[in-house]
Amino acid sequence: MEAEFIHWLRRRLPPHPQLLLGPGDDAAVLRLAADAACVVTTDTLTDGVDFILGRDDPRRIGRKALAVNLSDLAAMAARPVAALVSLVLPRANAEIPALDLAVELFEGLLPLAEAFHIAIAGGDTNTWPGSLVIGVTVIGETTARGPLRRGGARLGDVILVTGQFGGSILGKQFDFVPRAAEALLLNERYSIHAATDVSDGLSLDLSHICAESQCGAVVELSRIPVSTAATELARQLGDGRSPLDHALADGEDFELILAVPPDEADRLLAEQPLQVPLSRIGTFTAEPGLWQIAADGSRSPMTPRGYQH
Amino acid sequence: MEAEFIHWLRRRLPPHPQLLLGPGDDAAVLRLAADAACVVTTDTLTDGVDFILGRDDPRRIGRKALAVNLSDLAAMAARPVAALVSLVLPRANAEIPALDLAVELFEGLLPLAEAFHIAIAGGDTNTWPGSLVIGVTVIGETTARGPLRRGGARLGDVILVTGQFGGSILGKQFDFVPRAAEALLLNERYSIHAATDVSDGLSLDLSHICAESQCGAVVELSRIPVSTAATELARQLGDGRSPLDHALADGEDFELILAVPPDEADRLLAEQPLQVPLSRIGTFTAEPGLWQIAADGSRSPMTPRGYQH
Repeated sequence: MEAEFIHWLRRRLPPHPQLLLGPGDDAAVLRLAADAACVVTTDTLTDGVDFILGRDDPRRIGRKALAVNLSDLAAMAARPVAALVSLVLPRANAEIPALDLAVELFEGLLPLAEAFHIAIAGGDTNTWPGSLVIGVTVIGETTARGPLRRGGARLGDVILVTGQFGGSILGKQFDFVPRAAEALLLNERYSIHAATDVSDGLSLDLSHICAESQCGAVVELSRIPVSTAATELARQLGDGRSPLDHALADGEDFELILAVPPDEADRLLAEQPLQVPLSRIGTFTAEPGLWQIAADGSRSPMTPRGYQH
Repeated sequence: MEAEFIHWLRRRLPPHPQLLLGPGDDAAVLRLAADAACVVTTDTLTDGVDFILGRDDPRRIGRKALAVNLSDLAAMAARPVAALVSLVLPRANAEIPALDLAVELFEGLLPLAEAFHIAIAGGDTNTWPGSLVIGVTVIGETTARGPLRRGGARLGDVILVTGQFGGSILGKQFDFVPRAAEALLLNERYSIHAATDVSDGLSLDLSHICAESQCGAVVELSRIPVSTAATELARQLGDGRSPLDHALADGEDFELILAVPPDEADRLLAEQPLQVPLSRIGTFTAEPGLWQIAADGSRSPMTPRGYQH
């Protein structure tokens, strides 16, 4: 199965200027930009947790497996170069033979790779009696501005976010566009102190920046950009949870949270240099922990919520 | 679970001169040697196929997951720098809680990482209702001599191998030492045309070099270094398969197959520069396919045998 699949794949893959040696050898060889550091991240998606095979189209699953890694590189403002794709395929799935499933996963993944100009450098293809597991590793390179880290936020920095939040389960969890180009543009033209992407949940991922930067954060609830999907999901569920609550806790928005010095934040908000809106939602503070300011001005602790692994 | 595990791991990891940013951010940042190309490989091991959880010690499983990747980098004569480790842990295994299993896997993996001076740059930790999956990606760098490829064998090159073959299921499949240092030494001091490591089976992996190099190979059966484990396994099974047959087909020996020009092969065999013996087992030929020469001098086609994915 693996030989047949690699044969199919090698015919499908376009050449890439930085891929010196691609699939079919013991390892791949990449040429990174001179002076660049190598940035690497990996994420594994599993059936029943991150997707449901049989409900979700394998093309969307394959695309997502690559996209979540591109979002991680975006959070570092690193330029993605190549991906390795590891498939663990169900051996005797009555619905779909292993080879067909592998092809469908790649039919979703390859267009995203091409859109982001990254090479498929290799991977690993296995079958087993269990359910589908797909792991992707993305290799990127730093730019002249260096990587953005979670740990760089400073006292008084403004909290900026891209896009809207909440209700990603209605579609965005699969169809999001990783903010790779946006992060590169922001890091090149503006002074950004820290960044992360929102995979677990806006409030939980914000708390990760605080933990690594050893600071706290105050969030103005009225400024949170709540997506229409969050409103729709709250309506559908009808369980009393507000759209704002979904925006703070749902996760898988794959938007960016940025720590930006106040003057630079003003400039950014005035210029709005991205296709997607940038919003100011609060401030990083010396006082540890997360705090929220309600519409009436009252202040209270905010519990970081989201997907706990 | 993931936060607790990362906390444990970060305390355990020694600093590494090439790891600029390690676990805990959205991605890791590595500094590769100036002028080096980036060499990457990934391998995923699954319960019931590559190991059996409950029978095999998780420490041996964790060690193997890293070691197979180091063997792939050895086959490229690349210097390993760092690893990413992805765990998909059974959520409710009655035998062992997910966190304990993660720790035991790393207790096997970390000493090997330290012995090979590689950083644990990051990874991904998940739990699910299924069985254990462990995927490792290793990032390395080329040396001044460049990478070895499968496709470089030339007509008349001698087939050299390190070590002995067969019966790896009796222990070597877990306890092998990746030939990383050996490959670097050979590539630095000698002219090597092509290489691969033996994971699938000596005859099958030899056929991979032939396919990529568009040549054939003639193997002298009397020259195959048959391990004592192959003899022991043949005795235990008592099914009529010879130790030689195990040596050619068992796989997971994780030795190197090299294509070396004849003069250089003579020098290598005379000097025996490694701790492990180097043996000449045949010659690469213009005629495609694998051929075997028996002790009586008769020649016949050899079927590539080994683990078919």
